[in-house]
Amino acid sequence: MGSANSFVRNIEFEIMEKVFVVKIGGNIINEEEKLSAFLQSFARVGASHQLILVHGGGKLATRLAEKMGIEQQMVDGRRITDAETLKIVTMVYAGYINKNIVAQLQASGCNAIGLSGADGNTILAHKRISKNNIDYGFAGDVDAVNTDFLQQLLQQKITIVLAPITHNKKGQLLNTNADTVAQETAKALSGHYDVSLIYSFEKSGVLLDANNDETVISKINPAYYAQLKKEQKIFAGMIPKLDNAFAALNSGVKKVIIGKAEALSSLINGTAGTTIVNE
Amino acid sequence: MGSANSFVRNIEFEIMEKVFVVKIGGNIINEEEKLSAFLQSFARVGASHQLILVHGGGKLATRLAEKMGIEQQMVDGRRITDAETLKIVTMVYAGYINKNIVAQLQASGCNAIGLSGADGNTILAHKRISKNNIDYGFAGDVDAVNTDFLQQLLQQKITIVLAPITHNKKGQLLNTNADTVAQETAKALSGHYDVSLIYSFEKSGVLLDANNDETVISKINPAYYAQLKKEQKIFAGMIPKLDNAFAALNSGVKKVIIGKAEALSSLINGTAGTTIVNE
Repeated sequence: MGSANSFVRNIEFEIMEKVFVVKIGGNIINEEEKLSAFLQSFARVGASHQLILVHGGGKLATRLAEKMGIEQQMVDGRRITDAETLKIVTMVYAGYINKNIVAQLQASGCNAIGLSGADGNTILAHKRISKNNIDYGFAGDVDAVNTDFLQQLLQQKITIVLAPITHNKKGQLLNTNADTVAQETAKALSGHYDVSLIYSFEKSGVLLDANNDETVISKINPAYYAQLKKEQKIFAGMIPKLDNAFAALNSGVKKVIIGKAEALSSLINGTAGTTIVNE
Repeated sequence: MGSANSFVRNIEFEIMEKVFVVKIGGNIINEEEKLSAFLQSFARVGASHQLILVHGGGKLATRLAEKMGIEQQMVDGRRITDAETLKIVTMVYAGYINKNIVAQLQASGCNAIGLSGADGNTILAHKRISKNNIDYGFAGDVDAVNTDFLQQLLQQKITIVLAPITHNKKGQLLNTNADTVAQETAKALSGHYDVSLIYSFEKSGVLLDANNDETVISKINPAYYAQLKKEQKIFAGMIPKLDNAFAALNSGVKKVIIGKAEALSSLINGTAGTTIVNE
């Protein structure tokens, strides 16, 4: 009986193909050379893995707004997306950054396609509801990810590059947090694939000492996370990221990996970064 | 023998599905209401026809360049695409305009996807060679259209929206004339489909009297075109467009139709505009 069961389990395990949803942080996008090096390693990994890249916009949108004399309204550290800001982020995220990333991936032999949430109705969202009299403008909260369309592209061995611009299917584009786009995409695809969600940024992972890149915690599960928080050993800025990571795991994502963008292949094979798991 | 042959011809005729490549002119893009009306009629037509939309950028790119204090270099009426101008056209064409068109089509129930030439390696180009010491900068001349990928999308009943930004597969984006993108796409697809190429703009078609919109010539074939030119009955600005139209017909495109964007469904069913044919 035991061996028959383990056979069935093996089969079930085998049929879930792996997909990696990789979010790249702003700092990489700001620096042309770093971005270029990252994309080359991404393309190499992409030759043997199914990848989805999610990017934000870094400082380019802010710089463009300054050049055009558009003032950025910030509330609680969040940019308020007024009509002019929406224009800018659409141009910068879905245009300039997205198309340059795709062109560079194509140059490295990776057949990529860049999508906003409107393209193929990939990410449906609604305009964020005002809270405490704060109107967030054209900020979008995600309602649904079109997994059928993403699956069709993945089956054609096409690498998807998502810009964090969504739409409401009423003709309105919306500005959505790139971390959220990555998380919602990973969650939605986890019904069909064995999904790992990778947050790549400038640090080597979740650190015990925020100033020492060699204090990476290699694995965090819920019990250890509770202990780290209790002992206040975790950098405060990391807590929302980790809360989001556990939320993703609770919605079917298999692994969340946090680490340095330059080490992408090591993050994927589990020899670098912090892996967050639910057990 | 005759009837067997005509049977074969019928079969051959039947299996070529129809595709319409529709280029919209700059004037429509400049006016929000006109664009919106056009896209609604485009979506209606798209419910029963396979459509590809090709757009340029109208005056938006010029306006943005002005706002940012970037001077536009023009030679022989063509914009020279320096590095800053390439950034702007990428943002405006492949970002702002492309994504707004896609979002509006999605709102009208048309499942559209917006692509630059880099996405899915849709349009491969090379940097235009300098002539007479004029460096055209990052202007791209088309080498190849990825018909396999376009066919896969068409088979999925996805409406393609092409921005006139191409790439050279070496990581460089290039600015390509939208009329050329439409023409090259139509030519490339004509090996697989019965392709009509529609140039929609503000006038009702090719006019005998450029100032009278009621003097539309309904049909032009090579013999009639020669006569019109000989009798100088044709508006000089229309000649390059017509030369391009005949070049497209000589490369396999079935029909070229020139007419008013607002009359799209009439252009498609042949009751408005000028139809250019090779016989």
